[in-house]
Amino acid sequence: METAEIVGVGSELIRGETLDTNTAEVARSLRPYALEIWRTFRVADDVERLARTARELWSKTRLLVFLGGLGPTPDDVTTEAVARGLGLELEEDPEMLAQIAARFERMGRRMTGRNRKQARKPAAARWLANPRGTAPGWWLREGGRDLVVLPGPPDEWRPMWESLLPQLGLPHSGFVRRAVKTFGLGESQIMELIADVWDRGVTSGIYAHPDGVHLTAEGEPRAVDGWIAAVAERLRDHVWGYDEDTLPALVQAWLQERGATIATMESLTGGLLAGLLTDVPGSSKSFLGGVVSYSMGAKARFGVPAETLTAHGVVSGETAAAMAGAARELLGTTYGLATTGVAGPDELENKPVGTVYVGVAGPDRVEARLYRFPPLGREALRQRSAFAALAYFWSLQR
Amino acid sequence: METAEIVGVGSELIRGETLDTNTAEVARSLRPYALEIWRTFRVADDVERLARTARELWSKTRLLVFLGGLGPTPDDVTTEAVARGLGLELEEDPEMLAQIAARFERMGRRMTGRNRKQARKPAAARWLANPRGTAPGWWLREGGRDLVVLPGPPDEWRPMWESLLPQLGLPHSGFVRRAVKTFGLGESQIMELIADVWDRGVTSGIYAHPDGVHLTAEGEPRAVDGWIAAVAERLRDHVWGYDEDTLPALVQAWLQERGATIATMESLTGGLLAGLLTDVPGSSKSFLGGVVSYSMGAKARFGVPAETLTAHGVVSGETAAAMAGAARELLGTTYGLATTGVAGPDELENKPVGTVYVGVAGPDRVEARLYRFPPLGREALRQRSAFAALAYFWSLQR
Repeated sequence: METAEIVGVGSELIRGETLDTNTAEVARSLRPYALEIWRTFRVADDVERLARTARELWSKTRLLVFLGGLGPTPDDVTTEAVARGLGLELEEDPEMLAQIAARFERMGRRMTGRNRKQARKPAAARWLANPRGTAPGWWLREGGRDLVVLPGPPDEWRPMWESLLPQLGLPHSGFVRRAVKTFGLGESQIMELIADVWDRGVTSGIYAHPDGVHLTAEGEPRAVDGWIAAVAERLRDHVWGYDEDTLPALVQAWLQERGATIATMESLTGGLLAGLLTDVPGSSKSFLGGVVSYSMGAKARFGVPAETLTAHGVVSGETAAAMAGAARELLGTTYGLATTGVAGPDELENKPVGTVYVGVAGPDRVEARLYRFPPLGREALRQRSAFAALAYFWSLQR
Repeated sequence: METAEIVGVGSELIRGETLDTNTAEVARSLRPYALEIWRTFRVADDVERLARTARELWSKTRLLVFLGGLGPTPDDVTTEAVARGLGLELEEDPEMLAQIAARFERMGRRMTGRNRKQARKPAAARWLANPRGTAPGWWLREGGRDLVVLPGPPDEWRPMWESLLPQLGLPHSGFVRRAVKTFGLGESQIMELIADVWDRGVTSGIYAHPDGVHLTAEGEPRAVDGWIAAVAERLRDHVWGYDEDTLPALVQAWLQERGATIATMESLTGGLLAGLLTDVPGSSKSFLGGVVSYSMGAKARFGVPAETLTAHGVVSGETAAAMAGAARELLGTTYGLATTGVAGPDELENKPVGTVYVGVAGPDRVEARLYRFPPLGREALRQRSAFAALAYFWSLQR
């Protein structure tokens, strides 16, 4: 199988000042095609090194994509470096130069000498218009192979790449990729339950995320569907969704279908649960509001009975249930959802870091559940707990 | 200068099912040393390809680090592949096997055949104990060069790497790296203000983040301090911090020094602002709680006057200020901080996506400020707005 090579350009990517999500996103967009991607690179803003990388990769690949380093600042050297690596001359395009100047004029700013280099490309390359930024990309086709150079910001390169991709004439694989998403079991536990299914005719994968363990299969559509069904059968109660499903979107869609509403009261998750619920467009129809009752005083003020807090403690199933009920009362919603627990670094009420209770209140009943997470670190624990609340709510409703 | 090469292993990294933050974190940890890192790799779980990568890199580098692929599942092949690439025999270590078995016993689970491979390493390599997981790493020193193989989960490899690093005897660079952090100016605006300082004796960088634009300098300590001071001088009012500062930690420390408290009321940020404030350990001393008033009814219920909402609209400076005041009242805090705005996808009250108001209420005054962000996408806009609220609060207090 032919390969595609994807290079994220920028010294900031190597050290993580900016997280490189670009190379992975381009790799995902190439999934329907019969191109193998077995590695990706991040390379510094260095003319010599970038030129060498371009030269080495270009000779052996069907598709070579560079992202980043097309801006006006002195460290933006991708065009110069790639051209040098491939032995191509750069030419300034007067029309592009005029376009860039006009754009600056519209924004009421002056084009500087630095922006001039953005009008240069190899003569044989075609421009790729950038509708959302000043840095155009370029595309070179040579001997049935494609070299694509795009800017770094995802909002800029994404529309450029989407309109270019169908023009590249890449071979289709006929393969599909699907996922089963679970919450509440670890990777090894899952592997024991599905060991005999694991590599039955597909390329399978298993990945831990804050919203649980995802299992993926890639291959012929029928084999993939069979694998997904077999795995879901084994993990039944722990499965919450498939493919592109997300817990916030599933919960919101379920509520909206029923004209139901929800409110939250959060302690250890401190707003993350509300943040997940409101990340879904149109969520204000079903999510009316929430409170972060980070102090004991705030819990009481928002309607958690003082007797519950003193009798059972802040980190208890009783308090989680009372918080869920109080959230429901406070905002007059169909459901209330609450979290309380110990995010660390210190333990609380003699309960270890990782002890988390989720409370759910509805028209018929109020209940709470205990989760014992390993000490993952404060941020990971808060994330995991917010998803636990959604997974628990979702498991009760189905 | 000698080089270090860092390889993140895992097919999931290439497609972003798991975001690779490991290679960047290892690169950052090597900053004090005189080793050049001009690229990083992600390579699939494939024995042949990994073996070839190991062979090619090992011959030319001072330090080679692999992260990931040491688990018990069938796609964990790093040890086998690296050994094959370097022509080393693997040996099963009975002592390590006994340790792994004992660990399973303590967890009340049975060791499977799959876990057995975790007890194999090249004979000349030393084990690296993994205090938080079942997969040990290993370290091979050969001809004054080091090969390090670590598991993928950050909580597992981090303590292993921290205790190994001083033993590697890497040469120190004497260089330091510092950062100035700003909010409210774009990269090009900043470049125009500091153009003549930009490469004055240091390696400089400029990076856009949700909490604003960061500028970095690396080099000799005196040159770096001079650069940082010169840049801060130019960008004065927009600078909110330096180096490892974060806005949530600065705000929380400032409040706690004064025995002051804060509460939030959030509309478009939907809990993210509370999430940032509670991400700081010990934050419950100063952050008493917050509300997410996602619906108009919730705003009224939490104390925003109905007349303000009807006269000025939900997305207005008046409403932002009233929300901040209501949060302060509701939780009896020194300060109230509020956000309202249009996250999209649709506009609201004829105001375009990206229109955001932040309100601040304190003992002496209530005020609000308008931000007009470009249409960055819903999630990025919500993030940017939550940081805008903290940056605005911080700018008023200093």
